[in-house]
Amino acid sequence: MRAPSASVRQAAEERLAGLAVPPGALGRLGDLGVWLASCQGHCPPQAPINVRLAIFAGDHGVAAYGVSAFPPAITGAMVGTFRAGRAGVSALARAHDVAVRVIDVAVDDDAVGDLKVRRGSGPIHLTDALSAEETQRALAVGERVALEEIAAGADLLISGDMGIGNTTVAAALIAAGLGLPAGVVVGRGTGIDEAALATKTAVVDQALRRAGDRVDDPVETLTALGSADLAAATSYLLTAARAGVPVLLDGLMAVACALTADRIEPGAAAWFAAGHRSTEPAQTLALAKLGLEPLLDLGLRLGEGSGAVAAVPLVRASAALLSDVALLAELLPSDA
Amino acid sequence: MRAPSASVRQAAEERLAGLAVPPGALGRLGDLGVWLASCQGHCPPQAPINVRLAIFAGDHGVAAYGVSAFPPAITGAMVGTFRAGRAGVSALARAHDVAVRVIDVAVDDDAVGDLKVRRGSGPIHLTDALSAEETQRALAVGERVALEEIAAGADLLISGDMGIGNTTVAAALIAAGLGLPAGVVVGRGTGIDEAALATKTAVVDQALRRAGDRVDDPVETLTALGSADLAAATSYLLTAARAGVPVLLDGLMAVACALTADRIEPGAAAWFAAGHRSTEPAQTLALAKLGLEPLLDLGLRLGEGSGAVAAVPLVRASAALLSDVALLAELLPSDA
Repeated sequence: MRAPSASVRQAAEERLAGLAVPPGALGRLGDLGVWLASCQGHCPPQAPINVRLAIFAGDHGVAAYGVSAFPPAITGAMVGTFRAGRAGVSALARAHDVAVRVIDVAVDDDAVGDLKVRRGSGPIHLTDALSAEETQRALAVGERVALEEIAAGADLLISGDMGIGNTTVAAALIAAGLGLPAGVVVGRGTGIDEAALATKTAVVDQALRRAGDRVDDPVETLTALGSADLAAATSYLLTAARAGVPVLLDGLMAVACALTADRIEPGAAAWFAAGHRSTEPAQTLALAKLGLEPLLDLGLRLGEGSGAVAAVPLVRASAALLSDVALLAELLPSDA
Repeated sequence: MRAPSASVRQAAEERLAGLAVPPGALGRLGDLGVWLASCQGHCPPQAPINVRLAIFAGDHGVAAYGVSAFPPAITGAMVGTFRAGRAGVSALARAHDVAVRVIDVAVDDDAVGDLKVRRGSGPIHLTDALSAEETQRALAVGERVALEEIAAGADLLISGDMGIGNTTVAAALIAAGLGLPAGVVVGRGTGIDEAALATKTAVVDQALRRAGDRVDDPVETLTALGSADLAAATSYLLTAARAGVPVLLDGLMAVACALTADRIEPGAAAWFAAGHRSTEPAQTLALAKLGLEPLLDLGLRLGEGSGAVAAVPLVRASAALLSDVALLAELLPSDA
């Protein structure tokens, strides 16, 4: 895994220090601009104009076991809502000029497509989510989508998610990746009650015990505890990093996939920034492991990539600051 | 003081609850959209397109007494940098399509202008900042600027600040408004050391003792402890509220002025939202009193209105969400 440019990072840090503002006054936006420059390989950085979101949709067998406040049929209905441009992330993406694409990787309905791996993924507390062959196909889907988006000119990529039950699976991936028990990673998702939270925790615990030491291997983890849509999203993020395209991460699902991508190829996370703090505890735990701190904390619990899309203007702002603010040297008399 | 529309607020809350998203999933952006609708008096709200920032610049007598890391001459130099479009807030404003205007209210230089009240304001620990007549002129300046910006079509207003020493004066205004001692309101401003922090605290303490119970009256507080630029900004915010134009507040100076405006006419703060959490403790204390919670916490310490300008896309996003997301009733079969 190639790292973002260290020499450009240093040049950007020097430029930041030389701006005609008090030291540190740009706060997180200064650091973000330096990261963006190092990813782009030039300083000052350019504001990302072709920002592209791919939403990976799929159903999850665990949804039939009382882990969600919503029925699985919502997943397919929401795919239609994305395509009609009427979902939450659709509105945010229009407001911030972000291109949106929805990929049906594993929705449990009759729809077919090149990129559909299967109808739903297995209930991870009872069976593997995927066969080894399905995992490979899902990884290929994510790679293909990323390469297509990069070919379309993406200068910043975002992954989104849709799938009832997916916070259960994402929590399992993070527990596996960090070696943590179910109790500390499970949260309320779209809003479950105490009883469902206990069920969800038991499902993740059972899934982790079932997977055993297969979780030491990140791809095997996707097979045992993941899903086709989250495997595809993991590969999408990994492909972006390999291609040197920066990524703005969304909430729990994106960060579970980012953690898994960084396990597959250590160093991938250097290409990622975090858009929004999830209310799910597992996201904070995984971000800490990756050394990332979210830009926003607005209590969004929408999924879909929405928290990252909401943060896109901050990435653009960070580039504008590093690029357009006067240097102190320009303002001082030449003999100073 | 007229309040934002209660009936439109209720309609917006009902619309928010009827969107095809999980309950509460829009987090702070849902609440922000409801506030915007109530200010605009129609639901769904429209995204603010004509956002206008007025930066009130002025010098402060306390700057000569060791309270700042920077010399007073910076104030006038920065006015030129704003006019050249090369300051931090200039870059942010271009990135987010915000109009910027700089008003020299009290810069300590030879520049003259219709809106200039005096050269600098008095050192508040030793003398009043202003004469009573100067306070009235400064209030008239802020009103005139707000009315001009509203006449130019502003649908969201922001106040910015420039003036070495202004965090000392803003801390004094907040201490006076909240009845707090100097020690709990004073912070490090643009980055002072321990010795300067002690000096700054002593200056605010001395100023508060000098003003005595004059702080019970908010206009008298501006005369004793404020400055021409902060009095103008206070009046600008108050005029916006009176005219029913929503305001996005920036950091310490904007919030000190907002608190003072709400003291002059209780209820003014209902027209204000908070853009960015300051690192200055006094801002958090004053925001709590006003019942406001900032949208962003990025560690910006730039002043100039920059934290509010950085948050403008979130206000636009909140309107887009409330306006464009499908209603659950639209997605359900008509016989449901």
